[in-house]
This record gives sequence, C-alpha cells and structure tokens, in this order.
Amino acid sequence: MCQRHGLDVHIVETPWGHGLPATEYEAILKADKNHTIKVVLATHNETATGVKSDIAAVRKALDAAGHPAMLFVDGVSSIGSMDFRMDEWGVDVAVTGSQKGFMLPAGLAIVGFSDRAMQATKTSTLPRTFFDVHDMQKGYDNDAFPYTPPVGLMNGLKLALEMIEDEGLENVFARHRRIATGVRHAVKAWGLELCAVSPDVYSDTVSAIKTPDGFNATDIVTRAADKYGMAFGVGLGEVAGKVFRIGHLGMLTDAMMLSGLGVAEMVMVDLGLDIKLGSGVAAAQEFYRHGV
Amino acid sequence: MCQRHGLDVHIVETPWGHGLPATEYEAILKADKNHTIKVVLATHNETATGVKSDIAAVRKALDAAGHPAMLFVDGVSSIGSMDFRMDEWGVDVAVTGSQKGFMLPAGLAIVGFSDRAMQATKTSTLPRTFFDVHDMQKGYDNDAFPYTPPVGLMNGLKLALEMIEDEGLENVFARHRRIATGVRHAVKAWGLELCAVSPDVYSDTVSAIKTPDGFNATDIVTRAADKYGMAFGVGLGEVAGKVFRIGHLGMLTDAMMLSGLGVAEMVMVDLGLDIKLGSGVAAAQEFYRHGV
Amino acid sequence: MCQRHGLDVHIVETPWGHGLPATEYEAILKADKNHTIKVVLATHNETATGVKSDIAAVRKALDAAGHPAMLFVDGVSSIGSMDFRMDEWGVDVAVTGSQKGFMLPAGLAIVGFSDRAMQATKTSTLPRTFFDVHDMQKGYDNDAFPYTPPVGLMNGLKLALEMIEDEGLENVFARHRRIATGVRHAVKAWGLELCAVSPDVYSDTVSAIKTPDGFNATDIVTRAADKYGMAFGVGLGEVAGKVFRIGHLGMLTDAMMLSGLGVAEMVMVDLGLDIKLGSGVAAAQEFYRHGV
Amino acid sequence: MCQRHGLDVHIVETPWGHGLPATEYEAILKADKNHTIKVVLATHNETATGVKSDIAAVRKALDAAGHPAMLFVDGVSSIGSMDFRMDEWGVDVAVTGSQKGFMLPAGLAIVGFSDRAMQATKTSTLPRTFFDVHDMQKGYDNDAFPYTPPVGLMNGLKLALEMIEDEGLENVFARHRRIATGVRHAVKAWGLELCAVSPDVYSDTVSAIKTPDGFNATDIVTRAADKYGMAFGVGLGEVAGKVFRIGHLGMLTDAMMLSGLGVAEMVMVDLGLDIKLGSGVAAAQEFYRHGV
Repeated sequence: MCQRHGLDVHIVETPWGHGLPATEYEAILKADKNHTIKVVLATHNETATGVKSDIAAVRKALDAAGHPAMLFVDGVSSIGSMDFRMDEWGVDVAVTGSQKGFMLPAGLAIVGFSDRAMQATKTSTLPRTFFDVHDMQKGYDNDAFPYTPPVGLMNGLKLALEMIEDEGLENVFARHRRIATGVRHAVKAWGLELCAVSPDVYSDTVSAIKTPDGFNATDIVTRAADKYGMAFGVGLGEVAGKVFRIGHLGMLTDAMMLSGLGVAEMVMVDLGLDIKLGSGVAAAQEFYRHGV
Repeated sequence: MCQRHGLDVHIVETPWGHGLPATEYEAILKADKNHTIKVVLATHNETATGVKSDIAAVRKALDAAGHPAMLFVDGVSSIGSMDFRMDEWGVDVAVTGSQKGFMLPAGLAIVGFSDRAMQATKTSTLPRTFFDVHDMQKGYDNDAFPYTPPVGLMNGLKLALEMIEDEGLENVFARHRRIATGVRHAVKAWGLELCAVSPDVYSDTVSAIKTPDGFNATDIVTRAADKYGMAFGVGLGEVAGKVFRIGHLGMLTDAMMLSGLGVAEMVMVDLGLDIKLGSGVAAAQEFYRHGV
Repeated sequence: MCQRHGLDVHIVETPWGHGLPATEYEAILKADKNHTIKVVLATHNETATGVKSDIAAVRKALDAAGHPAMLFVDGVSSIGSMDFRMDEWGVDVAVTGSQKGFMLPAGLAIVGFSDRAMQATKTSTLPRTFFDVHDMQKGYDNDAFPYTPPVGLMNGLKLALEMIEDEGLENVFARHRRIATGVRHAVKAWGLELCAVSPDVYSDTVSAIKTPDGFNATDIVTRAADKYGMAFGVGLGEVAGKVFRIGHLGMLTDAMMLSGLGVAEMVMVDLGLDIKLGSGVAAAQEFYRHGV
Repeated sequence: MCQRHGLDVHIVETPWGHGLPATEYEAILKADKNHTIKVVLATHNETATGVKSDIAAVRKALDAAGHPAMLFVDGVSSIGSMDFRMDEWGVDVAVTGSQKGFMLPAGLAIVGFSDRAMQATKTSTLPRTFFDVHDMQKGYDNDAFPYTPPVGLMNGLKLALEMIEDEGLENVFARHRRIATGVRHAVKAWGLELCAVSPDVYSDTVSAIKTPDGFNATDIVTRAADKYGMAFGVGLGEVAGKVFRIGHLGMLTDAMMLSGLGVAEMVMVDLGLDIKLGSGVAAAQEFYRHGV
C-alpha cells in the first residue's frame, strides 16, 4: 500500500517475465471488506517484457471476492492484434493507441468505457483538468467534437478498421500468433530465451529476448539501427541491458519478419555472440511454411 | 538485316545471359562503308536476364570503325542504380524511367540527348506523331511545358534526386553492388546459377536465377505472391519458365533483401526443390556483415 | 485535303469560337462515294476556345451519308464533367485523361474502343510503334498489364470514380453547368464576351473570355499568377493575346469559383480595364444562390 | 477570487470584445504584497471574439508591481501568424498547437518554457499525472522522446517551418494583417461590426462579426456549411448566436479569402439580411489590390 497523488494504492509486484498473479489480486480484494478499493488496474500485454496477462482471471478474482471495484485495462499493445474481450471479461475501461494494432502514426488515444464506468464518472469527485469523457459524449451526441479533432488520424482509423475487417479479426489474431511463434522458434534456434517465462504468457505482439550474462543487450539495438537501419527495442527498468525486444505487430507479414530475424542474427554475430547465421531464420521459415 | 517500320535494321543476336558482343558491332560498323547505319542501339542492363552490357565497349567499336552513327542506350534498369556515364561513353540518347533507380511510381520517361542528337533531330525526316523533343526544348526555354506535366512525379523526382545526393551517387552504386553480391552468394549457396553467364555481366539491379530442368520457374513467382505476398519476376521470352527474377534496386537495404531471399527459399522448398532453408540467407548475411 | 504522315487528311476549318459544322461533315462524307475516309475525328470540348461541339450531330451526318467511317472523339476536357454518350452517339474511339474531369494528376490516357474499333485494329496495317491496344487486351485478359502500370494513378482513378458515383454523375454535370453559368453571368456583368459565339456551344468546363481590342489578354494570366497566385490560361493560336481562359472543372465548388472571378476582376482593374470590382462576383453569386 | 482544483484563482473579467485590462492586472499584483500569486495567465489572441491582447502590457504590469509571478500565455491562434515575442515580453510559458499558424492537422501541443519556468518545475509540488516537462528534457538530451512521438506531424512541422522561413516571418505576419484588413473592409461595407471593439484589439487571424439584433448568427454557419460547403465558426458563450466567425490564418491567400467573403454574402442574403452581393468582396478587392 502506498500513496499516489493523494490516493491509497496497492501495487502488486510480480517478477519481470511473469504474468499478473490473479490469486494475489483475489486475496487483496477479499481482504478489502469495506470496498475501499475502487479500481483494479491490469496490463493485458506488457510491452517491456513481452508478457501477456490473463485478464479473464482478474475478472474471476473480482467475482470470487464479490468485490464491486471496476476493472481498468491497458491494452495499448494488444488491442487489434491479440484477442481482447471487453464485454466478456467485464472490463470497465480499456485504453489503446493508434500506433500499435491500428497501424497508424501515434496520436490517438482510444478509450472504451463500460456503462458502469460512464455512470461512475458522474459521481466521481476526482479533478479533471485535462480530459473529461462527458465533453466527448456531449460532442458525439451532436456529431461533433469538444475540440479540434485530428481528422487525418480519424480517417486513418476508419481505413485501418476496414483493413482489419477485410482480413477478418480472427485472421489478424492468427497472423500475429503465427508470426510471433516463428520468432519464438528462432529464439530457440539461437539458444536464447524469452524474458516471458512460460508459453501461457508469451506475447504475440512483442518478444523480449534475454542475452547471455555479461553481454549488454542494448548494444544489439544500437548496432541494428546504425549498421542495418532496423529498429529493435531496448530493455527497460529491471531488464535494461539484459534483453532486446523485437516488435511484431500491425501491418506485418511472415516475409517482413524474416528480415528482422536476419538482422538480429547479423548483429549478434557482429557482437561476438555464439549464433549461427541463418539458424533462427531457418527455424522461422520452417514454421511459416506450415503455420496457419 | 530486316525491315521495321520501313527502316533497315540489323539485329545483333546474342545468347540469353550474355552481354552484347562489341566485336560483332565493330565488324558490322566497319562493313558499313557508306554509313547507312544511323544509330546503334544498346541495352545497358537487360532486365529479363539480369545481364549488364559494356556500353563503353560499344563506343570503342564505333570509334575503331570510325563510324559516325549515334549511340542510343536503354538505361531503364541501370541509371541511378549502376554506374552510367553518358558523356564519357559518348552516348547520344539515353532513356530511363521514374520507376526503377529513381524509386518513384511509373509515369515519367526520362530521356537525355547529346548535342549531336539534338542537332540530328533538326534534320531528321522521321515522322513524329507522339513526341517531338523540340516541343520540350521550346517549353523549357520558357520555364514551361508543351503539355500538362505530371507535377506530382516531378516533385517526386526532385526528392529522389535529393535522396540520392544525400547518400552520394557512388554510395548508391556501392549499395546496389553489395546487395546484389549478397543475392549472388545466396544463389550459389542454393546450388543454383544465374542466367547471366559470367561475373563481368552480372547485373546489380536484378538477378535472373535458373531453376533445374523440368521445373517450372514461374511457379515460384506465383506461390511467392499468393502465399507470402512477395513479388518476384517471371522469365520472359526464351527463358520463360526457366528462370525467376529477384529485383534489387531502388530504396532497398540489406535487411529488406534478406526478406526476399528468405521467401525465395520457403517457396522453393514448398515446391520440392532441394534447397536448405536459411542457407542462402546465411550466405548473404555473411557477405552483408563485411560488405562495404 | 492534305497529307499527314502519308495519309490523306480532310481538315474541316471552322472559325474560332464556333462548334464543328456537322453539315459540312455530311457533305464531305456524301461526296466520298468510295469510302476512302476511314475515320472522322471530332473534339467534344475545345479547350482553347471553350467551345462544345455536337457529337450526336456528327453521328447523324455519318448516318445521313450512309458512310461506314468510324467516329473518334477527343473528350479530354469533357468526359466526366459534361454529358458524353459513347454508345448513344456511336463513338468508336473516345479519349480523355486523368487530369481533367477525373480530378487527378496528369499521367493516365483513358481510351475507350467500340467493338467495331477493336475489330478494325485487327486488320489495320498502320504501324504501331508506341501503343497497341491488343497488348492491353491480352494483359487485361490475365488480370495483368503489358508493362509497369502507374498504380498510384489507378488507385486514384478508382477513388475519383467513387467520388463521382457518390455525387451522382448527373449531379456532377449539373454542378459544372451551374458553375459555368455563374462564370458567364460574371463575364456579361464585366461587359465582356466569350470566345464561344452562342449558348449552344458554351463549354461547361472552360471559358475563354475576349478582352478589348488593343489589350494583351496574356497580361491577365501573367499578373494573376505573379500577384495573386492564381492560374488562368492564355489564348492559343489564332486567339493568342485576345482571350484569357478560366478553367472550371473537376473538384470545384461555387465558393471556389468566386475566388477565381474575384481575382480576374482585381487583375483586370489593375491592368486598366473598365471593370467594376465585385460586379462579376455579384452576378455569379446571384446565380449560385438560386442555381440548381 | 475563487477556487480551482484546490488553488486560489483570481479571474479578471473583461467585457467580450475587449482586450485584457493590464491596469487591473497591475492593481491586483500590487495588492498581492505577499506574492501569493505564482502565475499570471493571459490569452494573446482570443479565438471566440477575434480579440488580440497586449501581452507586453501585462509584462509591464508585472514589472510595475515588482511582482515575481510568472507569465503564461495562450498563443494558440496567434503564434506563427501574428507577432509574438516570448523573450522580449518576458513570457515564461507559451503554448500553441500544430493546427493553426503551423498549417498542420491537430495533434501537436507546442510549448515553450523560459529558464525561469524550467527552474520552477524543479521545486513545484503540483501533481503531474499526464505531462512532466522533465521527461521531455531528459529525452531531448539523448536525441530521444520519452514516449512514441507523432513522427508524421513532426516532419510536417519541419516543413511548415521551412515554408514560413521561405516566405519570411515578417512577410507571414504582413500577409495575415493584409488578409484580415480586407475582411474588416468587407465587414464595414456590409454595414456590420466586429465583436472586437477597437482597431488596437483586432485579431489578424480570426474575425467575429456581429449580426443584427434578433438574428441568429449560428444560422449563417449552418447554411454556409450545408449549401456552400464552407466552414465558418459559431459564436461561443456570451456571444453565441450573436456573432459568426471567419478564420483567416495559415496557408491562406487574398484570392482564397475572397471565396469566404463571397460565401458569407450569399448566405446573409439567403437569410434575409440587408446585404448587397459583392459589396464586401469589392471592398476587400480594393484593399488587396493595394495592400502590402
């Protein structure tokens, strides 16, 4: 329990690479007899570690505890690319952005409210200096916006949604799963491991790959950008220097993924890691040839 | 010698995969004592076979024969990507397009005339129904065009030229050579051969790769497009069904090339060719790691 | 009768500002007992003079003469903006471009062939060095193109056609008629006259406006561009210096047209013509307020 | 004095149409002997009323009172279009957006901090949930961003700044002044008045125009959009229904402005106001012909 901006906050710690511990959530909620907890926060897909968490399990924890707290979910790097079920999982507020699964430049924060969450905004006394969803609602009721809207991104979102519908949402999810699985085959072929500890938490949109002890994983990211013009992600926080990340979401094909894997191999060999050129690519190719 | 549109035409045949035979040009020119030959045509880079020809040698043939014919060069798939020297090689007319080395959509035919060629257009009696360079010249003299110009493509060309100058023309050539050499290493690793018969005629912008007898190379192109969303080129004319082509020019990086090689491997294995997945990619990677 | 590229050509002269003389066409066709005339050419909308011709009348002339010649129509500045009926008028070949009624950059020549015209291409012995429609047909039969297509413009054309269908083709025609009529009201208010001699030949896509004797109309175009950043058209050929042209086709609204009229007024006053500022604008406004 | 988010706030009321009262600011600051006021807020250009305020006078008020409060300025609809002098006027924080003077889509908030303001952020205890400028500073120090940046808009901003530099910032200001002055001549010709009460507060980027008593100015905006496809602004707050607004900033020319004035005239006549068509256009034209 700590204080943030004058609010009491429980932070549920979990080792990097693990999904969120729903049983611990449940215990805390059960112990909160007076329902002082108003909101449970959960990240669906943790971008820093490539870890997917089980949001349905958080809902079950809430239900098992008979607790009325709302469920807020960070779906920034999952919504549109991985299966996310706002209604079925009883999510009250979900947030994502334009720049991940929707394949657009950064610029739109896309937020969903349940009826219950909308109701709560009417009685909440939290200060709203920057954003009040009621302004949006009033605008929408009049086919308008409460401020100058980013029209270009909104047209882009319309097109992105048409692309997703043309491909079929299930097919979009399956494509991300296939591409990610190919990456995981490559990682195994390299003799490396993911930061994510077990298959049930493997993310289909980003893989954080652990490098050997004593090796600075950030060097991979720097060299990939400098020598091969490719953008990987650095490790953040506790895993800084220990992992590098390959993003694999959005408008991506198996063919494009091979390019990323090929560059990762060149860079790792350049930096002296004991990796066989083409080994990860071949593992991914074998999977992509058969993968659905 | 044959007739085309009422003109006598010598066609110099050369086996597919070979460069143009400058000595044969020279012999024909020397035999033409009356200088009835007005123009010598040559293709700098043959897109169908991935063969580069020695334009300087054609100039030497003209000079050795003391023949006044003009030299017209098709540089469509070389200019801007491979070393081409209009003045040094005494080229009188050179033609290229916007959609190759200049990295733009198709739409602009870019033509260069030597002073001598411009002079010849003033006395030539050939009919000009579609295009007369004098219309262009008159327009340019007044900062104008003789017809509605494709402004978008012309702005694009300005930007493309700035990109090329920023990278440095020599660096652009070197990049194409490096990428193409990587492809050739991959082809060797696959146990296949280029249509181009020897290193001196290897093209740096397109590789036509021969497939084993009895195999329909066009199937590679079809499957790459259908299953992996990648565009290769089919064999044309005499080599239809016998080669497939990988284009590697324009705004291309080593990393992107690995993607094409990886797809080629998957497709060839899919179609039953005896290729080891990752083998060509690894050969290219090894080269790209060290290549300048 | 004259010779062009080895062909006998009748040129039917008509004073600038008049439409094509269908009766003269008919007389020539009737006199051609041996049917040596193979093709009748007609321009639907003459861009230099802002004159619309009656293509249906040419068809009637052909029919009245019982002459089998084909009818080729230049519809560059009419098709998509003014009523054009290829089948009803028995047009055999019609040509337009992407940069007029289709609201795109220059770059596509859009050509329609009747069945009869396609049939004729099979027996015609005219040389085809630049374009052979059979290459296109063969390509289309295989969902392909005989050469690298300008994909961007083709996607643009698809969008342009959707825009036209959304507005409704009849509405597009009506909009052009309304905007053009407003321009004609402005011209009358200025005390000037169109090059086009009578309402039946007034073009709905471009107006060529005569300036007083002794005045150089080209100065209007120069000053409009230099001082006000607006592009008018100069007079061409026989009317060079005698007219300036206002184009009013494509993605244009009444509101945008007022801008052009307002600039024309400022320029004419700047250059000393006896024009009242706002007079033409007011005449157009009055019409646009009520015009359908 | 009132409370906002737990802070004491002086709100300085001024009648709509007037600029900010610097003398009143000075009095309040002088009375604040204990320097409890930390920040003075001022809007440079009030978009709702088309009123420009004298920011230099606020600085003088602060100096005259010997008061250490910082000066924060809303320059959303002025910066880049009207003369704004952050250093000379001693502005500590200035804010604008991408969608006004910078001619871009909405999406970038552009904020400037003085050294003093940056210093204050280090000791301030105000909660920062959404934005902390130190995150930006740390990022910039490493040529990086603390979050995914909107790259497209940033490239657009670079281009916008190049356009402004090419034209010359003083010329950009002069152009806005000229265009706005033309609009004011038109308003006078219509027999109407601006919401802004005197020339010293006339905005060069937006004009709010008062309509006669009993007339609903919002009808003008609705009809302009519905019938003529043009976007004017409605009156807001106290002047809702009493004014309509014409924006005239960004990539705008005299010629384009005539279009807006022409539509305003048509709409006002359509709605029964006693306006002479062309009268305002003519007044603006006369000015634009001579205006620098």
